[in-house]
Amino acid sequence: MGKPALRPLPLAVAMGDPVGIGPEIIGKAWRAREAETLPVFAAVGDANAAWGVPVEVIGTVAEASSIFDRALPVLAVAEAGRHAPGTPTQAGARAAFASLTAATGLARAGDAAALVTGPVAKAQLYAIGFDAPGQTEFIADRCGVARRDTVMMLAGPSLRVVPLTVHVPLADVSRLLTVELIVAKAIATAAGLRRDFGIAAPRLAVAGLNPHAGEDGTLGREEIDVIAPAVAALRAQGIDARGPFAADTLFHARARAAYDVALCPTHDQALIPIKTLDFDEGVNMTLGLPIVRTSPDHGTAFDIAGKGMAHPGAMIAAIRMAGEAAARRAGA
Amino acid sequence: MGKPALRPLPLAVAMGDPVGIGPEIIGKAWRAREAETLPVFAAVGDANAAWGVPVEVIGTVAEASSIFDRALPVLAVAEAGRHAPGTPTQAGARAAFASLTAATGLARAGDAAALVTGPVAKAQLYAIGFDAPGQTEFIADRCGVARRDTVMMLAGPSLRVVPLTVHVPLADVSRLLTVELIVAKAIATAAGLRRDFGIAAPRLAVAGLNPHAGEDGTLGREEIDVIAPAVAALRAQGIDARGPFAADTLFHARARAAYDVALCPTHDQALIPIKTLDFDEGVNMTLGLPIVRTSPDHGTAFDIAGKGMAHPGAMIAAIRMAGEAAARRAGA
Repeated sequence: MGKPALRPLPLAVAMGDPVGIGPEIIGKAWRAREAETLPVFAAVGDANAAWGVPVEVIGTVAEASSIFDRALPVLAVAEAGRHAPGTPTQAGARAAFASLTAATGLARAGDAAALVTGPVAKAQLYAIGFDAPGQTEFIADRCGVARRDTVMMLAGPSLRVVPLTVHVPLADVSRLLTVELIVAKAIATAAGLRRDFGIAAPRLAVAGLNPHAGEDGTLGREEIDVIAPAVAALRAQGIDARGPFAADTLFHARARAAYDVALCPTHDQALIPIKTLDFDEGVNMTLGLPIVRTSPDHGTAFDIAGKGMAHPGAMIAAIRMAGEAAARRAGA
Repeated sequence: MGKPALRPLPLAVAMGDPVGIGPEIIGKAWRAREAETLPVFAAVGDANAAWGVPVEVIGTVAEASSIFDRALPVLAVAEAGRHAPGTPTQAGARAAFASLTAATGLARAGDAAALVTGPVAKAQLYAIGFDAPGQTEFIADRCGVARRDTVMMLAGPSLRVVPLTVHVPLADVSRLLTVELIVAKAIATAAGLRRDFGIAAPRLAVAGLNPHAGEDGTLGREEIDVIAPAVAALRAQGIDARGPFAADTLFHARARAAYDVALCPTHDQALIPIKTLDFDEGVNMTLGLPIVRTSPDHGTAFDIAGKGMAHPGAMIAAIRMAGEAAARRAGA
């Protein structure tokens, strides 16, 4: 989406749960704006949250550009009241929800160049009636995109990974893993890497489900029955997909050099390597949406909220990645 | 086992498949013996294999000590004939089998301080009638230890991991994961860390099976029904076990500092992080045996065999770890 603009539009950054580390890391990202050469962004949420930096309340996202040099621009859409850091409340969840809704709407409307979302407390959101499994599904719904057509990609300095199944019991993965699922996720992933990362011919590595990728069927047949046919179907469509590869040998430095993204059947196969290598800089990007959406790949960290200890690396990386993707989409 | 000795006994190193990289990395380890301060070892196998260094044939392991300075001592127990590097044959498999059998016997008899095994080609071994799933099970059988009482631990410079299930289809893991299995593996692991690594009170971290360790049961119940009770049973026995922890956040540097070994329900949960971090130096150690047994944590690498390109790091680490463990058992 994104209207043509002479200068880049600001990004909209939803604050996440106000008593988590969201406001702190957004404030720290603003403080690092020059050192990190970050694009202009507006925080969307509660003006009284613990940003830890000078803030100025704005009425429209466009106002952020003229303020960004001297203060964190905050589009005030919620009022969580005063609560102890690290102790989530339903009022906080309502503020997080309002922030997410407003920031998503701004990106959808083309008033913001991209959407970046801070971490939320799911249990509290469910308690106030939030009926999506997570922020990603909520955003897909708001964008009019079927949830199954979106892809969660985790990206860090060392690698990019896509879990083909996400928040499901491990015992269900074998049943859920179908040729159709893999093909759909891989096509959306390849399109996302072309559109948002400028990779003309993305190289996709697909991991096996079983130990050693099933070892020729002796340790499970999903590789033969499902994954290999999916890879063949992708290649027939001109997508440079390879595999299935044994997941355990897919993530050392030499192996990573051979692909642009690794697609893994289970959540942990994908999340373990990126969190092992890029823990403080992992970005969660949703592919397949009409808007650019990123998020730091960590939670609310209630245990350290309010202590000034939160590492802003992932939020900084999320803002930078969103800005770069938005610029590519705008043809800049 | 290991008889009391005034000076340490040599280690026995089984060559593995003669046309894989086994002989080459054993030869390279011998060449690095001074720089790496390795203990004295004897290669057990075919004197004509592609060792790539000067060799001298010995008649008993004890002779290795006086030769080790000037040549790789080889206890010749097999003759594979001449075959192209990288192309496995049944003759090669028979030589690998003879080497494994002899080296295991030497360690069992107390003639060698420990057993180190080179990589084998399982398909070729099966073709000649080898009836164990892998070398580890064969060694357990020879030692009179029930296979289920042994533990495969992978150890590298960055971490130690134990897969609670190993070479089984992923769809079977939920069924195979029992309180009894976890408790037995954890007890053997803790005993191994005390005995072979000198860690007085080993700290065990147990990973969950499901994404986010099941997220309070919403993404699977194995954590609640199986893993947490196993951890509680271990703690009741005085073992410092903790968990279940989300596997994806268990392997970054700060997390690793909190435990001595991580136990993971699936093969890939354990093998992905160690092969990502310590690919060239990963050691496979079998705990629960009367002998010390290690192995480089990689395969025969037929694709690079005979080219002089094989990295000896894991073999060197396997020899060093075996020597240190044997010394601890001997009370040195």
